[in-house]
Amino acid sequence: MDFSLTPDLLELQQRTRAFIRDKIIPLESDPRQTPHGPTEEFRRELVALAAAEGLVAPHVGVEYGGLGLSHVGKAVVFEESGYSLLGPVAMHIFAPDEGNMHLLEAVASTEQKERWLRPLASGATRSCFCMTEPAPGAGSDPAALRTTARKDGNHYVINGDKWFITGAEGAAFAIIMAKDDDGNATMFLADMDTPGIEIVRTMDSLDHAFAGGHGVVRFNNLRVPASDILGEPGKGFRYAQVRLAPARLTHCMRWLGTARRAHQIATDYALRREVFGSKLIGHEGVGFMLADNEMDIRMSRLSILHTAWTLDQGARGTVESSMAKVFVSEAVWRVVDRSVQVLGGQGVTGETLVARIFNEVRGFRIYDGPSEVHRWSIAQRIGRNGANW
Amino acid sequence: MDFSLTPDLLELQQRTRAFIRDKIIPLESDPRQTPHGPTEEFRRELVALAAAEGLVAPHVGVEYGGLGLSHVGKAVVFEESGYSLLGPVAMHIFAPDEGNMHLLEAVASTEQKERWLRPLASGATRSCFCMTEPAPGAGSDPAALRTTARKDGNHYVINGDKWFITGAEGAAFAIIMAKDDDGNATMFLADMDTPGIEIVRTMDSLDHAFAGGHGVVRFNNLRVPASDILGEPGKGFRYAQVRLAPARLTHCMRWLGTARRAHQIATDYALRREVFGSKLIGHEGVGFMLADNEMDIRMSRLSILHTAWTLDQGARGTVESSMAKVFVSEAVWRVVDRSVQVLGGQGVTGETLVARIFNEVRGFRIYDGPSEVHRWSIAQRIGRNGANW
Amino acid sequence: MDFSLTPDLLELQQRTRAFIRDKIIPLESDPRQTPHGPTEEFRRELVALAAAEGLVAPHVGVEYGGLGLSHVGKAVVFEESGYSLLGPVAMHIFAPDEGNMHLLEAVASTEQKERWLRPLASGATRSCFCMTEPAPGAGSDPAALRTTARKDGNHYVINGDKWFITGAEGAAFAIIMAKDDDGNATMFLADMDTPGIEIVRTMDSLDHAFAGGHGVVRFNNLRVPASDILGEPGKGFRYAQVRLAPARLTHCMRWLGTARRAHQIATDYALRREVFGSKLIGHEGVGFMLADNEMDIRMSRLSILHTAWTLDQGARGTVESSMAKVFVSEAVWRVVDRSVQVLGGQGVTGETLVARIFNEVRGFRIYDGPSEVHRWSIAQRIGRNGANW
Amino acid sequence: MDFSLTPDLLELQQRTRAFIRDKIIPLESDPRQTPHGPTEEFRRELVALAAAEGLVAPHVGVEYGGLGLSHVGKAVVFEESGYSLLGPVAMHIFAPDEGNMHLLEAVASTEQKERWLRPLASGATRSCFCMTEPAPGAGSDPAALRTTARKDGNHYVINGDKWFITGAEGAAFAIIMAKDDDGNATMFLADMDTPGIEIVRTMDSLDHAFAGGHGVVRFNNLRVPASDILGEPGKGFRYAQVRLAPARLTHCMRWLGTARRAHQIATDYALRREVFGSKLIGHEGVGFMLADNEMDIRMSRLSILHTAWTLDQGARGTVESSMAKVFVSEAVWRVVDRSVQVLGGQGVTGETLVARIFNEVRGFRIYDGPSEVHRWSIAQRIGRNGANW
Repeated sequence: MDFSLTPDLLELQQRTRAFIRDKIIPLESDPRQTPHGPTEEFRRELVALAAAEGLVAPHVGVEYGGLGLSHVGKAVVFEESGYSLLGPVAMHIFAPDEGNMHLLEAVASTEQKERWLRPLASGATRSCFCMTEPAPGAGSDPAALRTTARKDGNHYVINGDKWFITGAEGAAFAIIMAKDDDGNATMFLADMDTPGIEIVRTMDSLDHAFAGGHGVVRFNNLRVPASDILGEPGKGFRYAQVRLAPARLTHCMRWLGTARRAHQIATDYALRREVFGSKLIGHEGVGFMLADNEMDIRMSRLSILHTAWTLDQGARGTVESSMAKVFVSEAVWRVVDRSVQVLGGQGVTGETLVARIFNEVRGFRIYDGPSEVHRWSIAQRIGRNGANW
Repeated sequence: MDFSLTPDLLELQQRTRAFIRDKIIPLESDPRQTPHGPTEEFRRELVALAAAEGLVAPHVGVEYGGLGLSHVGKAVVFEESGYSLLGPVAMHIFAPDEGNMHLLEAVASTEQKERWLRPLASGATRSCFCMTEPAPGAGSDPAALRTTARKDGNHYVINGDKWFITGAEGAAFAIIMAKDDDGNATMFLADMDTPGIEIVRTMDSLDHAFAGGHGVVRFNNLRVPASDILGEPGKGFRYAQVRLAPARLTHCMRWLGTARRAHQIATDYALRREVFGSKLIGHEGVGFMLADNEMDIRMSRLSILHTAWTLDQGARGTVESSMAKVFVSEAVWRVVDRSVQVLGGQGVTGETLVARIFNEVRGFRIYDGPSEVHRWSIAQRIGRNGANW
Repeated sequence: MDFSLTPDLLELQQRTRAFIRDKIIPLESDPRQTPHGPTEEFRRELVALAAAEGLVAPHVGVEYGGLGLSHVGKAVVFEESGYSLLGPVAMHIFAPDEGNMHLLEAVASTEQKERWLRPLASGATRSCFCMTEPAPGAGSDPAALRTTARKDGNHYVINGDKWFITGAEGAAFAIIMAKDDDGNATMFLADMDTPGIEIVRTMDSLDHAFAGGHGVVRFNNLRVPASDILGEPGKGFRYAQVRLAPARLTHCMRWLGTARRAHQIATDYALRREVFGSKLIGHEGVGFMLADNEMDIRMSRLSILHTAWTLDQGARGTVESSMAKVFVSEAVWRVVDRSVQVLGGQGVTGETLVARIFNEVRGFRIYDGPSEVHRWSIAQRIGRNGANW
Repeated sequence: MDFSLTPDLLELQQRTRAFIRDKIIPLESDPRQTPHGPTEEFRRELVALAAAEGLVAPHVGVEYGGLGLSHVGKAVVFEESGYSLLGPVAMHIFAPDEGNMHLLEAVASTEQKERWLRPLASGATRSCFCMTEPAPGAGSDPAALRTTARKDGNHYVINGDKWFITGAEGAAFAIIMAKDDDGNATMFLADMDTPGIEIVRTMDSLDHAFAGGHGVVRFNNLRVPASDILGEPGKGFRYAQVRLAPARLTHCMRWLGTARRAHQIATDYALRREVFGSKLIGHEGVGFMLADNEMDIRMSRLSILHTAWTLDQGARGTVESSMAKVFVSEAVWRVVDRSVQVLGGQGVTGETLVARIFNEVRGFRIYDGPSEVHRWSIAQRIGRNGANW
């Protein structure tokens, strides 16, 4: 049992922290931010700043320009990045790119890696992951997949509708999940400018931090050569799992950093503001909320680190990552909601960053599996195997 | 003990419900809505629709064009108005106008009523209530008031800063709270175009429904004739109480209607959407959330009606309205948050109205006394008087 | 809308309150109390005290010696009784006798009433209600009923096992639910000393207040004449509903009174005890708990009164009583749990009555339908009829 | 970062688990259990069973017969012991003996260790820790200490009242906290049969597992030689801290094991019992509760292990142990309360062990600092040092 970090990782943590504090936070009021994330120009400037520090896509292997971080390494570094909403953009480790890089690195062919992973890992391009579909298609229940990939000689012809496709607008390429003629799910790679890919619209959403927002995408006789199948045909669901458990966990990491920020702002305010004759922090009603914040933050970190370590051991970590997702997404939410409350009127205005954070994190209790789906899947496992403590 | 409504009130409830459903909801996507409420043009159109049904400012006395509703009457009608975020604007019963009318009717002189209440009650004008100040002034603790009103012959000269002044932009007049030379709080009436009133800016806020948004207002040697004192000098705090308990309660009424809307949208979705082989509603994880919604909605209504009835009996209802504020603001929040969760990904996007509602109601746990201040004041009362059940 | 009580009911409330305070609370340390309630001797003394005040079984009709209280009347009076754990025993309105009287009055024949209701209503006898069965029989799901009643000429022969039969030990008679030859549920009346009725044992339980405790009862060829069918054959489930909704509500009433007691004790302590330089009540961490107690108590009362009024209007009140059961049982629990916490170490010892109350009320979130079953049934109704606010 | 246990510790975990399962659980219905713990005869038999496996007081150093476990080692082994309420008694690691051994080992002189620690560590004797006083003395606020130790030549004369003295009845000796003539707190050792020590009574309490129960103790001119001062004079508060942080944590460890047991029983029931046509576990309302149980159990374990590791690094771990105490005591409570609920009627009876566990663990949210005191102290630290994540 050892909860300490290696000196290298500690150094990287401090370096990332300093980078976010000194280079990124000062840019938080840059006007080049839209409801669908920073503009591409601004994004590139942010990435360039991270590149200057060697902090772009640090989870990717060294041969693709990253630092080859372990899951534990990611836990430490990604948390730091999330301390600013611009941090994960700058370090190019936001959804869906971070998870797409992970997936490509794990299952793509060498050629595919050169063509798609290398520019992605450098931050030169963005990507999207086209799995979720409007009802009655694949949402919380991926088995309901309706997008089809019909074999046609050496090509596949893909038809279907997708939505909640984060980063679609402005992405260079897409990973597409579709059902082949045998009813098996297969993943395809396709450049976004291929004929047959239409971005129908970008959805309005509470969160504004994701570059490219969340798109509605239509595939209309999209032709993809068989050589652009990602990995092997029919393994779409297995690959989705390869991507999902870690991707879910990296959300936990980044949003934990963001929750820390909200807590820091609320705490600074409570130490400064006087009301009814004493500092806000001196009122137990406020002090208890901040104490609960610190407990939620620390417990979340433990949950993330334990799950990351489990993945680093080579385990699938399905249960661990489900539990981490539920615990952390709910704990982060409590932290942010309490931070709003501590700030009082200012908490629901643009006077601090917390109102913005409030809107950014609400979706996290929903995407990558709502709490209810994870609880259900944990319960199903109990139903099969009995108590597992 | 009688929980039934009079036939007249039932009829008014149904009429208001139909008005909202048939005339207001169809306008909800009208583009003339800004982060600081509907444009003045759109607002006037909405008011005209309500006027055609005799539903403008129904809480005001008949002589000023209203229906002279009791508090219980307001509870019923205002809940219906809140079913659309545009409803209270159309019926001109949103904060702060609704409370300002109540206060003017209770303490203004006949001349003041003719000059300020009559046009306000018709919906022709809007108003604002200038009490809250930036730190270290009057926030949750009104006694910290710092705006001053120095006597100067037959006039007062007012100086100070206010913020969170709902509806400031576009208001015809303001009710201003200031400390006089004796250190007593006095309320003044002043047209907003009087020299010495400056709207410094309008704050960004999570809520977008309030016409005029929330302003930062500066009084810079504003001269107000003594005849424009509202009621009697030195009674500012007492009048604030006259305004506050009912105003707090009308927030409960309107937001309860809004919560009902979120619940209706979530329920409709849960009855329509299938996942994992059955309707969402058939999953207990979802069904329990909707059951809890219905309990929270009904309990909130009981709390409001009981408090309204208490006020109708002539009691001050301080404890009752504190408790209603805490219970309803927290219950409404739970309802809306659960509705978001039931809707899944759509809950955090513009696909339904619920994401918007989510942003509108968060502030309600804070304004008119955060939950913590009310709990503290209830506890103080227990400390003085012992248990009171 | 009228939340006031009639002068008669107010007088009865005050009279009951005084009775509990002056006559019953002084007896709370009487040693004649067992894990299965007061001894029969003590119970009779308690009933005699209530009889002297005309407060025995006040819900029963005047012709059977009661006051013919409406449901609202019961809400007021039963809450007062619950302020002492001995109160409902003294007034003979505890489960299952109170509900049994209600059922007998509603459906029994005149002869049955004379034979069983009259002595029961006077407090001379106790009764039990034999419905719940061990797995796989009728528990939360009454349709799983396994006890059989085979027709044999003019008699029925009953066989089966029941448990959680409150008051079985010492009861004069039982109401028995069994399935007849057609598979329909029928209710029977039988004196407990009839051959074929065996009390196998009395269960250990957290609660100790119910006279007779909770028995395991076996029917072994119990012969009951057809004339002792309660009401009509085959209507067992309908009668169970007649009994259940009000019985569920009277639990709410009594336990609300008990929660009030716990809160009173905790409050008195918090006003007396100093810690860290100020009274406990002066610490927001404690004061907020007591404030929440008062909110839970008042909201519970509103829920009960509204449901009682609904029943008084002749409605079945299924939804209302389900919601009241869930809300009140959970609110009462929170009140008691917080009262324990406020009392600190003393809260978990015999130094005050609160530890005892803690054990008495836990079961209330389970019996007469666990919260989960009620939420499920509310959700099912939503599934059939849509949102209902 | 390493969450794995050493092979030695894994072996010890398995050995302890087997010991509890095979030797201790079969004795759980032994009638020699009283409201104040097992009889001394039964206790000795239990200890003898543990001794046969080398599992008595494993946290004590090897030279006193233990295994010299680290804090992490204790976390693993003590959790196993708590799986039966008799486990910590058998292994002699229950409060207050476990903490007393730790304190003696840390600060007692060699002579004192031989006289008091050696027999204690073998399980031959029990001890008590006399710190808590009735109001207005030392409770949650140790500074309010009122018991005095007046110097009289080579002796001290101790006078004062203590309560909640766990294990007093039957203890061989006491550690006594008293204020000396300089107003400093000093700890004394005294055999319980010394004249001047009176056990006034043993308190009734919800918990029944602690051997000797909780006593009220009076010191009436108790004469203690200066050589029986524990450690150095005037260091009472410092030693209390030496004892408290780890003692608090070992409560977490044992009760986590107990929560696991409740969860196991509830899960087994939910997998067996059918209702409304499917297994209980198949109902999300039940399945979600069990899923939450597993999350609470695992998060509690992480919190304990992290705190234990922190202590093993030589840190004081004040914040960590406060947070662990709050999180684990509340999580354990939720687990047990949900387990009761899953079991339905059986959960509140003696049909399973869970009702018993329910009563055993309620105090844990109170003793060694109620949640509110820990939240307050965390908030105070935030007030001094700012956010600390």
